[in-house]
Amino acid sequence: MKTIDVCLSPELMHLYPVYDKTVVVVDILRATSCMVTAFANGVESITPFANLEECLKMKLKGYVTAGERDGKKVDGFDKGNSPFEYTDDQVRGLKVAFTTTNGTQAIEKSRGAKEIIIGSFLNLNSVAKYLLLSDHNVLVVCAGWKGKVNLEDTLFAGALVDKLKDYLGPDCDAPLAAQHLYNIARHDMVGFLSASSHVKRLNKLNIHDDMKFCLTIDQFNVLPRLKNGELRLR
Amino acid sequence: MKTIDVCLSPELMHLYPVYDKTVVVVDILRATSCMVTAFANGVESITPFANLEECLKMKLKGYVTAGERDGKKVDGFDKGNSPFEYTDDQVRGLKVAFTTTNGTQAIEKSRGAKEIIIGSFLNLNSVAKYLLLSDHNVLVVCAGWKGKVNLEDTLFAGALVDKLKDYLGPDCDAPLAAQHLYNIARHDMVGFLSASSHVKRLNKLNIHDDMKFCLTIDQFNVLPRLKNGELRLR
Repeated sequence: MKTIDVCLSPELMHLYPVYDKTVVVVDILRATSCMVTAFANGVESITPFANLEECLKMKLKGYVTAGERDGKKVDGFDKGNSPFEYTDDQVRGLKVAFTTTNGTQAIEKSRGAKEIIIGSFLNLNSVAKYLLLSDHNVLVVCAGWKGKVNLEDTLFAGALVDKLKDYLGPDCDAPLAAQHLYNIARHDMVGFLSASSHVKRLNKLNIHDDMKFCLTIDQFNVLPRLKNGELRLR
Repeated sequence: MKTIDVCLSPELMHLYPVYDKTVVVVDILRATSCMVTAFANGVESITPFANLEECLKMKLKGYVTAGERDGKKVDGFDKGNSPFEYTDDQVRGLKVAFTTTNGTQAIEKSRGAKEIIIGSFLNLNSVAKYLLLSDHNVLVVCAGWKGKVNLEDTLFAGALVDKLKDYLGPDCDAPLAAQHLYNIARHDMVGFLSASSHVKRLNKLNIHDDMKFCLTIDQFNVLPRLKNGELRLR
């Protein structure tokens, strides 16, 4: 039986060998939710950057730049980290250079994996179907918040473990913990997360609608995958 | 309101400043359960070591040596890591030098804290009472398994967060996650943990009785505390 494991923080990545694994990077609030929304709305590619300056320089190469730190859009960038900036025709056919507090850092730390795909509640089923057909063991990498474990990414990991439980065995305790938490939260994720630290942080920024949107399951049928340093639809 | 936070793995300790905190180190299976049992049975002191060789050398100074790696007693040491080796008159009045796979490493990584105390289900209430009267914010440091998050230490953290919820506020998402998990598991922790990776590991070593014992709440009214490099009763 293939296995599924969960790395609850990018700061634990050194404990998880990835060279033979399919890595699912998740940053529910909001980087990977934005990316999935952008691909569902026709973006051509998204190039993730860990570093702000390198990302901003991509403007010179004709890229739309998206930059977020501490939940807010960074001055000088075209876009921030709200999924509503990536809907309708706002990104169709464009190339986006993207840097965020946690999500793009998690992608950076996953390099060296057999393959890297982008997960969110919005494309949960697309991710699950892909993993079922893949030959590799799976590692879900939760972006967390500045290295600390967060609830929303853990819930996504739990949703995936739960969905695949008849096909992929949990590799350690983290997938079990995530699955238990998802099973408590699944019928009211917005309510469950209302006490979480990042949701409190986002509520202060008045982006409650972002949160509700990012917790909607199976809104889009897309699967962004990293290839040669950029995300594209497979 | 004072706060309580939970560091789910010693590998995340660099994210948590401890200089102004009371740190509760927990390694339910089985280092801190052994330590608490030993103090309840009259041990004079326990000196924790991260390093095997340094620990073994303490024999020359008249210490009883206890050494465990990968769940098993290490050759040359007097004792291993089963709480049943620390009951009755087996340790009364003795000084023990102790090294384990995870627990003593977690103590090592907590140095620099305002104070360090030892927690387990066996002395849960003693820990909670002490924290209520302390002036400092609290960090529970879960020993985990070789850096990875485990369920049993997370459950203890959750039990403590739950017990103190009217007095100490959660500082981030990890205490909330731990509390949720404890509330699922509390009425049958042995059953809940039967799927966990370390319990499977221990079951192979035929130490199911150790596990049941380590999950017994409030067996002892003792509070080991680190002072000048050694644990003693406060």
